[in-house]
Amino acid sequence: MDFFFRPKSIVVIGASLNPQKLGHQVLKNIIEGGFKGKLYACNIDPSVKKVLGVKNYPSVLDIPESPDLAIFVIPAQAVPSVLEECGKKKIKGAIIISAGFKEIGPEGEKLENELIKISKFYSIRILGPNCLGLIDSISRLNASFAPSFPKKGNIAVISQSGAVCTAILDWAQVAEVGFSRFISLGNKADVTEIDLLEFLEKDKATELIIAYLESIGNKVDDGRKFIEIAKKLSLKKPLIVVKAGKTEKGAKAIATHTGALAGSQKAIDAAFLKSGVIKADSLEELFVLAKSFSKIPLPEKKEVLVITNAGGPGVMATDALEAANLPLAKLEKGNLEILKKNLPKAASLKNPVDLIGDAKADRYELALKVGLKDKNTGAILLILTPQTATEIEKTAEVISEKLKTKNEKRKAKNEKPIFPIFIGGEKVKKGIRILEKAGIPVFGFPEKAVNVLKKFIEYRNWKEKIKKAPQPVSIEIEKYGKENVAAWIKEERLKNVFHLGDQIADEILRTYKIPVLKSRLVQSATEAIAASRELTFPVVLKISSPDIIHKSDVGGVKVDLKNEEEVKRAFNEIIKNVKRKKPKARINGIVVYPMAKKGIEFVIGVKRDPLFGPLIMFGFGGIWIEVFKDVSFRLAPLTPEDAKEMISEIKAYKLIKGVRGQPPLDEKAIIDTILKVCKLIQDQPEIEELDINPLLVYEKGVLALDNRILIKK
Amino acid sequence: MDFFFRPKSIVVIGASLNPQKLGHQVLKNIIEGGFKGKLYACNIDPSVKKVLGVKNYPSVLDIPESPDLAIFVIPAQAVPSVLEECGKKKIKGAIIISAGFKEIGPEGEKLENELIKISKFYSIRILGPNCLGLIDSISRLNASFAPSFPKKGNIAVISQSGAVCTAILDWAQVAEVGFSRFISLGNKADVTEIDLLEFLEKDKATELIIAYLESIGNKVDDGRKFIEIAKKLSLKKPLIVVKAGKTEKGAKAIATHTGALAGSQKAIDAAFLKSGVIKADSLEELFVLAKSFSKIPLPEKKEVLVITNAGGPGVMATDALEAANLPLAKLEKGNLEILKKNLPKAASLKNPVDLIGDAKADRYELALKVGLKDKNTGAILLILTPQTATEIEKTAEVISEKLKTKNEKRKAKNEKPIFPIFIGGEKVKKGIRILEKAGIPVFGFPEKAVNVLKKFIEYRNWKEKIKKAPQPVSIEIEKYGKENVAAWIKEERLKNVFHLGDQIADEILRTYKIPVLKSRLVQSATEAIAASRELTFPVVLKISSPDIIHKSDVGGVKVDLKNEEEVKRAFNEIIKNVKRKKPKARINGIVVYPMAKKGIEFVIGVKRDPLFGPLIMFGFGGIWIEVFKDVSFRLAPLTPEDAKEMISEIKAYKLIKGVRGQPPLDEKAIIDTILKVCKLIQDQPEIEELDINPLLVYEKGVLALDNRILIKK
Repeated sequence: MDFFFRPKSIVVIGASLNPQKLGHQVLKNIIEGGFKGKLYACNIDPSVKKVLGVKNYPSVLDIPESPDLAIFVIPAQAVPSVLEECGKKKIKGAIIISAGFKEIGPEGEKLENELIKISKFYSIRILGPNCLGLIDSISRLNASFAPSFPKKGNIAVISQSGAVCTAILDWAQVAEVGFSRFISLGNKADVTEIDLLEFLEKDKATELIIAYLESIGNKVDDGRKFIEIAKKLSLKKPLIVVKAGKTEKGAKAIATHTGALAGSQKAIDAAFLKSGVIKADSLEELFVLAKSFSKIPLPEKKEVLVITNAGGPGVMATDALEAANLPLAKLEKGNLEILKKNLPKAASLKNPVDLIGDAKADRYELALKVGLKDKNTGAILLILTPQTATEIEKTAEVISEKLKTKNEKRKAKNEKPIFPIFIGGEKVKKGIRILEKAGIPVFGFPEKAVNVLKKFIEYRNWKEKIKKAPQPVSIEIEKYGKENVAAWIKEERLKNVFHLGDQIADEILRTYKIPVLKSRLVQSATEAIAASRELTFPVVLKISSPDIIHKSDVGGVKVDLKNEEEVKRAFNEIIKNVKRKKPKARINGIVVYPMAKKGIEFVIGVKRDPLFGPLIMFGFGGIWIEVFKDVSFRLAPLTPEDAKEMISEIKAYKLIKGVRGQPPLDEKAIIDTILKVCKLIQDQPEIEELDINPLLVYEKGVLALDNRILIKK
Repeated sequence: MDFFFRPKSIVVIGASLNPQKLGHQVLKNIIEGGFKGKLYACNIDPSVKKVLGVKNYPSVLDIPESPDLAIFVIPAQAVPSVLEECGKKKIKGAIIISAGFKEIGPEGEKLENELIKISKFYSIRILGPNCLGLIDSISRLNASFAPSFPKKGNIAVISQSGAVCTAILDWAQVAEVGFSRFISLGNKADVTEIDLLEFLEKDKATELIIAYLESIGNKVDDGRKFIEIAKKLSLKKPLIVVKAGKTEKGAKAIATHTGALAGSQKAIDAAFLKSGVIKADSLEELFVLAKSFSKIPLPEKKEVLVITNAGGPGVMATDALEAANLPLAKLEKGNLEILKKNLPKAASLKNPVDLIGDAKADRYELALKVGLKDKNTGAILLILTPQTATEIEKTAEVISEKLKTKNEKRKAKNEKPIFPIFIGGEKVKKGIRILEKAGIPVFGFPEKAVNVLKKFIEYRNWKEKIKKAPQPVSIEIEKYGKENVAAWIKEERLKNVFHLGDQIADEILRTYKIPVLKSRLVQSATEAIAASRELTFPVVLKISSPDIIHKSDVGGVKVDLKNEEEVKRAFNEIIKNVKRKKPKARINGIVVYPMAKKGIEFVIGVKRDPLFGPLIMFGFGGIWIEVFKDVSFRLAPLTPEDAKEMISEIKAYKLIKGVRGQPPLDEKAIIDTILKVCKLIQDQPEIEELDINPLLVYEKGVLALDNRILIKK
């Protein structure tokens, strides 16, 4: 990627004499930005000798050397042929700013496909098309049509929307943040955020990456790749992503519950969780988090000290902390003594420490000093309201003095994070400016600071979890189980059966040592009675048909049959019901099961996400799944820790731990089953979806009662 | 209250010659604020003839007339005696700015109680103590120590925190909002927000009230009063409240589930819901809502048109709308045609209307014009990102031109609300300023605007609901039922029994025509068998003891007893268990019930909130209540519409409507039962808490299976 960020030579294709044209602006930006390398203009008009003092070549083929980078600012139709010339010229990278490709419809898509072909054939990497370009504050390259060069800083920006790029640049001017590299992705015909993350992971100038994405990568494999590189990167530096297009209309036809609930957004959330990506829910949150992660050190512990000059906002901060599950720090005894000795009698020493309304800068200084050295305090919220006696500017100076070095350096030294919260408007403005100038972000409201702190803690926890390399898990299955199951699936498919229920699904799970019920497939009431005797009463009868997914809906299930008479009647009724309601369904017969012991109903499911692979779901099952949607998701592969997390995330976890004197359920067996399902789905690429609902969970053990598997068509 | 807001004459008690003293500042503020009435100073030093040109009287008793209002800025200890003099002088109101009362502890509380006594004796109303004072922009009275006089406007402010007062004043200076009346409540010794709301309801200068509250009123009755006046007011003008102190530690010992879940915050939420109060969750939200409700007209319908010059932010707006349950408008055909004819080919006409990146002001003008006249559109989100071609200022001008008159007037005419969303920082600043100057609030991010719109719609819906006067409901109960139940409760209480379970609770519910099981109290196994025969097998045996709340926990319940032998064994086991685990419990005997028909378990409960009265809970019951906390709350009295709302709010409502082919449950019977419980709790003031858990709900009918009632000690 070096030829994009540190090219030795550049040609601007479409360099124009007309200052109104983008081709002029881009060249001008490169020159004015301070690019140090060789620069060539390429304008097809042979009468043009120079553009902005740069020598013009009507064709790239005429240029005496092979430039590292070509920047395209010509009409879309002309791009492919010139790109081909660039390929021939062995140019390494192209930034295609020109629009008129995939984004305008099928016609443009065709054009874009040509670019992709040329790119592959000549090994020329493409950024764009339809992008704003690229800005590099380190190498002083402004290869974009953004007129302003952002301040140099430690944040790299990747954006899939040009408009968001311009908004971020505009925001940066007031937010006192600077950028290392700034990349507009455009249509992602070739280069995607994955390539860029790979580059930025090693980039010393970048300490934090923020990204606006509408999709992940540009091909099927990219989901996995994204996770891999994002994880590697997140261990070194934070990656904050806002992903647009969050809400999803529920799928219409549901074959499995997992299919209905495991939308692509769940997969993305799971991917972010797996790879330590910090998710921002809006552009606003992205901005706040970007600034905070770039400037504030991460806390070593989550206990928070609140310092305030007013009770009300102190209460609001406490509310926000409690909602975010962040505890208030208990100050060390000695530190409490210092506060007691030096603060007025009316001050409240119990965290939140209320310096009361007439607090001048000295009280803030004292409390801050105490908080910074207090061993029980992980982070400090410092609230100021503009009261009559309040020394706003002086307090701001005290804070920035107390933090001595800029936050950036404190960050490097991992010092305690301080969140100044200045509530108001006109009067607090000057204090805010002093702090922001000193590199200390100021918050307008307690809730905002608490949200940042929460993300800090989550990121820190993720890193710690990942650093503890988990024990490898080995899941034992039946001998030749993998091969057998693959063979059975193949067989079913040959029969044009893609929905495996009942015995075959049970058999597959059994092969992976997941407990299922014994069963018998029978063709007559007499056979049903014999089977019932063998399996012992009471029994359940279910229709077996590849064409009937929801058996109860067609009267295809009869439960708790206690004797031969009941079994006989049930058999006949089921046949009658099904023939009436689904006359065309293929019928294998009726399956006889013993009644399962009562247990609590959970669900384990899998849906293969097209981008990220198997997405595994655990939750509260039975019909409750549709009512409460109390489920959690993770992407395969899973560690036992992941499985444990999935279980403890759902509300019904209380049931597993034992509620109201009821005994706890077998959590270990659930973890085990989740891991087995995970192995199954990884072993068997032909399985698309899988539903164990209910998975009955007991004080000891589990039972996969009702199972269905969808295989690829 | 007129003497507070429009006094004809004022005396400042503690008027000081020293400019550093609050007593000086307050007098100065009154003079400089432009107060038109008579003004007196009161400084005990007889050598002082005038303060700031105002004639001094060492005692209020010396003043030649009775001033309407006295403002106290003297040490706390001196306040009571001077207040008494004010009483004698027949002064009507006192603003006590002085601090040093309840807020400093028991000593100050004593002093404050003196004030209250004097206030009652002399009928002198007190605002404060420990407050910032009061500012009235209409009568030009600045009776506070806030140095800046806020702009005149249509918002009244009530704040229980002086610091929040100063923050609001400071915010107002940058936010282009103005205030009608501005009141700092202080300790609420006498005047509370309830008095003020009563005044503001009729106040023509006030179109909107915002309040920061830490408590409601200052005495037991005030919860009900607050609801009454807030409701009356909300029908006329919006009341936005931020209530600090939201989170609550769960109660430790739970006698009823309702008691555990129905915290005071739930009661406040229910009170706001009942009275149409718009709840802000943070100061930030309060600020945004205040500005929006004061300046933007309410929508007539909830369909939203999104206009944007960039796809990404358009998607984010759509996400936010979907999450808020606000639909995108389908433009009228003719209007779509206009857009199609006039916008470039690449523009997207499907809502969000994407004007694309090179949109200048004219495209915004066109789209806005179309949106304003479109009959399917209720509100417009207008997104601008600062791209190269974007005419930020011109677009801002076009918008304010299109809205022609100031939003305040559009508001009066109930025109369509427009939410300009300018995303960025430095460049968009000027555009934002143009709009804000024209009285049009601008949002920085789509999510912010959508949240406001959501609150608009909720407020509008509430008003519509209230305006439709509901049919009065008459609940029939047993003859003399009210008197009988009151008598039984009295009797139990004489026996020192405060926890009524089993038969007595059942009997009370039966009296209110709520279906309960028949039962028999028995003293021996033989009696138990006879009762079982009478009630028909299978039966349930339960210990009956006023000292055992959780019967299962002590082995005091045996279910599904199918024959005499089982009943006998169960009887003896229960007695044995209870004697072992609760040897000191008073035992009435054992109650025999028939087994109830299986049904879905819900819960109805009541907790009498000390402030707001009976808080009624409905939810998903059984043990699930602790797991999912899937419950809703309303304050009594209830209309059938309220009950219906309660039911439809919980997630398990899906079960009631019938999930996965299961038949729907008897919603009408649930509504009926909720209303009966409501009548019961209103009839019987001695009942503190009530729990019907589970309330079994069937396809037809309900059954209150396990009931407990706590009465006042």
